[in-house]
This record gives sequence, C-alpha cells and structure tokens, in this order.
Amino acid sequence: MKPYQKITKDIIQKLVDILGEKGVSTDPDRLVQYERDEGVEREFFRTPDAVVYPTTAEDVAAVLQLANTENIPVIPRGAGTGLEFGAVANTYGGIILSTEKMNRILEVNGEKMYMVVEPGVRTADVQAAAKAQGLLYAGDPCSGDSCFIGGNASTNAGGNRAVRYGTTRDQIYSIEVVTPLGQITRLGSRLKKVSTGYPLEKIVIGSEGTLGIITKLVLKLVPLPKYSVNVLAIFKTIDDAMSIVNALPKAGIEPTCLEFMDNDSVRVTEKFLGEKQPHSDIGNYMIIQVDSNDEDRIDDLCVALDELCHDHGAIDVFVADAERIWKVRKNFSEASTTDSPIMVMEDFVVPADELADLLKELEKISADQKTPVRSVAHAGDGNLHLDILKKDIPDDQWPAKVEAFEKAAYDAVYRLGGRISGEHGIGEKRKNLMAHYTDPVELALMKAVKKAFDPNDILNPGKIFDVE
Amino acid sequence: MKPYQKITKDIIQKLVDILGEKGVSTDPDRLVQYERDEGVEREFFRTPDAVVYPTTAEDVAAVLQLANTENIPVIPRGAGTGLEFGAVANTYGGIILSTEKMNRILEVNGEKMYMVVEPGVRTADVQAAAKAQGLLYAGDPCSGDSCFIGGNASTNAGGNRAVRYGTTRDQIYSIEVVTPLGQITRLGSRLKKVSTGYPLEKIVIGSEGTLGIITKLVLKLVPLPKYSVNVLAIFKTIDDAMSIVNALPKAGIEPTCLEFMDNDSVRVTEKFLGEKQPHSDIGNYMIIQVDSNDEDRIDDLCVALDELCHDHGAIDVFVADAERIWKVRKNFSEASTTDSPIMVMEDFVVPADELADLLKELEKISADQKTPVRSVAHAGDGNLHLDILKKDIPDDQWPAKVEAFEKAAYDAVYRLGGRISGEHGIGEKRKNLMAHYTDPVELALMKAVKKAFDPNDILNPGKIFDVE
Repeated sequence: MKPYQKITKDIIQKLVDILGEKGVSTDPDRLVQYERDEGVEREFFRTPDAVVYPTTAEDVAAVLQLANTENIPVIPRGAGTGLEFGAVANTYGGIILSTEKMNRILEVNGEKMYMVVEPGVRTADVQAAAKAQGLLYAGDPCSGDSCFIGGNASTNAGGNRAVRYGTTRDQIYSIEVVTPLGQITRLGSRLKKVSTGYPLEKIVIGSEGTLGIITKLVLKLVPLPKYSVNVLAIFKTIDDAMSIVNALPKAGIEPTCLEFMDNDSVRVTEKFLGEKQPHSDIGNYMIIQVDSNDEDRIDDLCVALDELCHDHGAIDVFVADAERIWKVRKNFSEASTTDSPIMVMEDFVVPADELADLLKELEKISADQKTPVRSVAHAGDGNLHLDILKKDIPDDQWPAKVEAFEKAAYDAVYRLGGRISGEHGIGEKRKNLMAHYTDPVELALMKAVKKAFDPNDILNPGKIFDVE
Repeated sequence: MKPYQKITKDIIQKLVDILGEKGVSTDPDRLVQYERDEGVEREFFRTPDAVVYPTTAEDVAAVLQLANTENIPVIPRGAGTGLEFGAVANTYGGIILSTEKMNRILEVNGEKMYMVVEPGVRTADVQAAAKAQGLLYAGDPCSGDSCFIGGNASTNAGGNRAVRYGTTRDQIYSIEVVTPLGQITRLGSRLKKVSTGYPLEKIVIGSEGTLGIITKLVLKLVPLPKYSVNVLAIFKTIDDAMSIVNALPKAGIEPTCLEFMDNDSVRVTEKFLGEKQPHSDIGNYMIIQVDSNDEDRIDDLCVALDELCHDHGAIDVFVADAERIWKVRKNFSEASTTDSPIMVMEDFVVPADELADLLKELEKISADQKTPVRSVAHAGDGNLHLDILKKDIPDDQWPAKVEAFEKAAYDAVYRLGGRISGEHGIGEKRKNLMAHYTDPVELALMKAVKKAFDPNDILNPGKIFDVE
C-alpha cells in the first residue's frame, strides 16, 4: 500500500473550512452508505474515511488541492449505481467526493439543441428535460432512473440506444473538468469537427474518475423521432436470432435498439413478473426498435423486418406493445438476481458480427465446465451481459468455478477482438483482468497518461490499474 | 533551439543498416521535394537533413529507437498535401520519415465491413476498394485524389461527408502505432462500445504525428447508399443560405453533404472553368446531397428540400448534375489561388448554428479593414475556409493586414465557441495562434500528455506547440 496520509481531525477541519459543516461527513451511519455500489462482491466493500459534498467546481478544486498537499486519495462518486466498485474506496483509503449536491440543469437550449447540466443530475431527468422540448437525449443506460449523468460520462455508459446513437462519449459536446491537481478547465466544444490539438475530453470521459472530476457537461440533443415501433422477433435457436445482427445493416436497416434475451432469460423474467410471455417455452427474443419521422417509412420497415426475420428462421414476428416488452427487458437483471442470488455478471464486448461465435463458445464452456449461464445482449453493439449462475455448486468450489469460466471466456472474447467491458468499466473489480489482457505497451501508455494528469496519484488511485 | 544532434555520416550509416541503401536518402535533389507541403508560405519551407522510407512497422520502430538514442527529431510524412507544415522539418532539423512505401491494401472484408490498409495508401484508392465491394469508405477530404489515408488520420481530416459520417477519427476502428520511443502497439478495436481503459487511439489520431506513427489502420466501411441526389439551392444573400443550416436537422433531414459557396467563390470558379454557372450574377450556393436506399424517400426529400429552401428565401432550387456541381465545388481552391496568388486560407470552425453569425462578423471585419475575402464552407459542420485576398494592398503592408484581420477573426471564432482548425490541423504554421487561444490548463495537459508519450521530444517536435 502506498504511503498515503490518514484522515486526521486537522484534515477534516480543513475540509470544513472549504465546504462548511454540511459539506463534510464522518458520521459512521452516513459513511456506511458509501461502502459499496450495485456490485455484490463483499470483498470490495469498504467504508471511506470521510465523504464531502461540494456544490461548485471551485469547491472540487479546493478539495483536490488540499488532497495533493496532504497526500490523500479522493474518490469521485455519482449515484453509486456502478457495478465494478469504481466509485468506492479501496485499500488506499481516502475521501469520497459525492456529486449529489451538484444537481442542477443549468440550461436547455432547444433552438441550438444542447443542454448544460451538473454531474449529479439523474439521467432520467436529463431525458425528461430534453423531451419537454421535443428533443431526445440519446444516452439510455438501463439504470437511467437512478444513475447520474456524471457517472454515465465517467464509465462511458452504453445502454439500449448505443447501436444507433453511440455511447455517452458521443452525447457530450464538452465538459468542465477539475484536474487531479485541482485546476479548472474546459475540454471539448460544441463542434462537429475540430483539429486543434488533442481531444482530451475523449479520454477524460470513460476514465472512471481517474483523470479528472467532471463538474459540468454540455450534452448533445437530437430531434425526437416522430414514430417509433418495437418489433419482437422470436427464434427457436440463439444462432438464428444472432444471424439478424449482421443482416440488418446490410439490408440498410439501422435499428435504434437491438436487444437479445436468451430463452432462459425470458423464462426467469416471466416467472419474476408473473406474466406469461409469448413462446417462452422455446423462444429466444430479439427486440428491434426502429424510429423514423416518416410514418410510411415505419410501415415499410415493419414489412422488411418481418420478411428478414422470417428468412432468418424466426418462428414469430410481431409489433410488440412498447411498454410491455421493455418491462420484460428492463426487469431481467432483477429477475435474474432474484432467481440466482449468487452469480457473476459479465460485460463482455466483441465486434457485433462476432457475437454469434462468442455465444457458441460460451455455450461450449458452460457445458464443458458444467456451469449454467444465461445471457442478454445489446446485440447491435456486441455487448453481452452473461450471468454465471451458482447452481448446485458448493460454496467452497464457487470461486474456482468462476475463475475457470472467466479464464476460458475472456480468452475467447480477446481471440474474437473483444474487450473486458462494453459499458460498466474496470473499476477496482476487474483490474487484474485488465492487467492480464491489455497489451503491455498500451497499458504502459495509459499509466504514463495517468501520471501526466495526476503526478501524485491522488484521484481515484488503483482504479482500472495501479500506476506502479 | 534545443540541443538535438546533427545528422552525421555515422548516423546515416546506422539508418542504412536498418533500412538498406534504398531506404535512406540524402540526395539534395530528393531532399528538396520534402521542403514543403501544399502551404505557400516560404518562411516555413525547410529542407530536411535526410529522408527515410521504411516498409514495415519494425523499420519504423528501429528508426525511432535510433532517434531516441542519438537525439534526432523524426518528422512523419504522408503525401505532403497538408497546409500547415505539420509534415515538414522545422528549425529543430531532423529526418523525414515518409510512409510512401507502406502503400498496401492488406484486406477488404466485405462481409464484416472493414478494410486493413497501410498508411501510404491514397485515400481515393481506399474509396475505390470499398466501392468495388458495394461499400462506402465515408472519409472524403477534397484532396482525396492525392492525399494518403495515414495523413488523413494524422490531421483527423474532415471533408465533404463529415456532416453525416463524422471525421476521419470516426472512420477508424483501430490503428497499429509505433510509439515515439519505438515500441509497437495496437490501439482501438472493431467495437461499437467499449469501457476498458483510456481510448488512446482517439488522441493519437489527429495528433499530427506527435504521439505516434501509424503503421496500419483498420477502417470502417458502411453500406453504399443506393440512391443519391444533389440539390443546388441558390440564395440572394449569405444570410438566407445560412438559415437552412439549422432548419435541415429540425426538419429531420440529415444531408450527406452541405456545402456553401459565396457569390464571389461561384464567380471566380466560373471564370476559372470557363463554364457559365446558374445565377452567378448574384447567387450564393448551397449544395445539398441526400442519400437513401429508398427511391421514394429520395423523391420525398427533394420535395421537402425544395419547399424548405424556398421558405428560406431561395431564388432557385433544382436537382443538379452531380459531376457538374461537384466540379465547381472541387475546383474552387485552385480557381481562387489562380485568381489571387497571394492570399491566406483559413480553416475556422464554429458550431454549425453559429456559422451565419461568424460570416456576418467576418463581413464586417472585411469592410472595416478594407480587406477582401471570399468563402466556401462545409456548412453542415460549421467549417469555413475563408480566403483573405491580397488585392490593391502593397507588399509591405500585407503581413500587417493579415495579422490584423486574423486577430479580429479568431477573436470572433472563439467568442462563438469555435476553434482555429476544423480539419487542417495546427502544424508549424498556427502554433502561435494555438498558444494564444488555448486555455492554459488545457494546453498544459496536452503538453504533459506529449511528454508522457515522448519523453525525449523526438517525434515531430515543435508541431502544434512547443513542449517547453
């Protein structure tokens, strides 16, 4: 462990001098609320030494300046809905810097189609504020009702519409950032093209709070499509379902969402909701959302999708009730953990055209290792959430089971040109995988960049990788 | 000037040991071909001390390792079609590393829609290889017939289709890079989403050869739209023409190209080509290309464009002959320099919705300072190529005229949220502007990142900025 300083009374007083009494907490009852995120692995739970609640960029800058002077880690945190313990203290200790009081929507410019927000605004509120002006904020993580926009930026969150609109990075024009040394700057611009130095915002976004604390975001808004339809295509085999992933772009169809649920996922969600789902006995689902401003175009797309899916072996294709089908998709995660409280959720990502092959390999690994799995996927962008299930496996054999499965699975993922995480990030939890699977030259460059931004390794140290 | 070593006979011999006799030149007749790019300012011309022609990434790595050992600058260069002297030696001296012998198309995968190329492939050949498989490589700089794909990546070239498809960065899945220290790595992946560490390829691309030498590129291909139409809308005023820039996205029309030419630009090109152009007496042109796979949709778009442009004051709107209208657009640059051999071409970029305001401000500056200008713009992405013309201005007053004009113009650009360069880069020529207009914290971060990649400041030193 690095020789960081402990949080003393003197330091707490200095924090209070910056933020006021209400801006600092060392109350154990309060601190325990920050010991975890939505991840379930108890070995990563850790109570921080203090939590601070800045309300301005200047507050954040002052805290970071103090942290550099005093040699104390600062862990930025949004709503705590992450899964990889990126916003939780680790063995280095330190202060949690919560953005929950920086929660204002500062401007919605309908004319110029952008929005300025602080990092602690809930993503659902961003979406609603855009919609109120007839516009769309295209970022749409499944946790939208609870997560913060700052956290979305921090992990480069993906979600359901990424296949069409890209990830969170693509929704951000510019950010106000406090650097690890406590300086305030703005990175990026409201430009569609620019060749004026290095676009550093592109690496600060997605850096899981290791390269800077985002204190303001200028978000891109797009026209809200007038018409939207959700087609549910049901396939007897995973392979048939997957075959449409490549067929769609070739047919010139650009879906807004393309979500896959395997049969076991459908069944576990059916049970959880207590609502019969179509063809749940054998069906693997592909939810295809298409949008357009042109009603005729939507009709044409429905016809084309019907034909294309049937050509690829669908047993049923129909226009689904949007609320109903998305309820199934969005309740899967809770349904799965309810059914199998002990499990590991993966966030594999491979090129979309390799997803079918990955699923075949995983099926084989599952059979070989007698480890049951179920999967849902943001199929259009090759992002697979595989749940590895602890069923009929004794407690003491479970860690070894997971390790063996992951070894084989990640080998397959990387062989297919994939990466560890599509949208959840690396955090504390997956940094061993990061160290193992990343090209050493690339990893050394990442560490050099981290040192360039944060010479004292103060900001969220030990997340993604250890610099030394 | 930094204490770089001079190129001695001993060093030339070491380069020959790496690359063979054919891989190294110190022939003065050869060297002089590398003294400039397409920029015209003689003060930036500089003959390099040697030129090397690697053919593999290993060659490039060995040259860079030697350069670090011997403390010699290396300037990577593609086809030399840049305009800001980014690929030309500066006062630090050094070796030009030309990618012209790394010119193979290694793979075109029509099924998975990607292409693997070396950096010295001409962009037009990339486009043709994609088209041969019924696919589109969407990058389309105006210099496509002569520039190299590696140079496009280096400057993050924009071009005519950027409004729809983005810039060169958006066309690249991954790159093989030799780092400034001479290590080979791969950055990026063929993934639509990823949250696995810092996406360093996004800053190496567009770094004008300061963060690495790209030795291989995996390019994104997209389906070639079946139908394409070019509408020419002619407006009496620049203001009317500009008013459609924001109107189009609001009407749900996503053009593939949206090119503006002011009346003077139309006239100078008409004269150059010797071909009468419609309404050239008063017309400001907006060329609007729309693509679709659906023939009916194209018809609908033409009707919608006709109505929208007339509503915004167009005096004529018609479907133009594609070859003919693009001939006008693409010959503008040569026409302008033929008419006004002494001029300065700017690469301003502002938010597209601020372009109308920028043009108004520039008109005022032009009138106030009695300095004539003409402009063409990639209007859909706010990128304006303004030519500042030396007419009736004595030679000795010209530099001061340019300086005064640029001062006022860049102040306006930055006030409107813009940047120095939309697509040409900073190079050697605009680094003073870069130093003046960039936020000091942001600039310091860029320099820190440069040092992280290139601790000895060997690779293209002094381009974009001086690190010290």
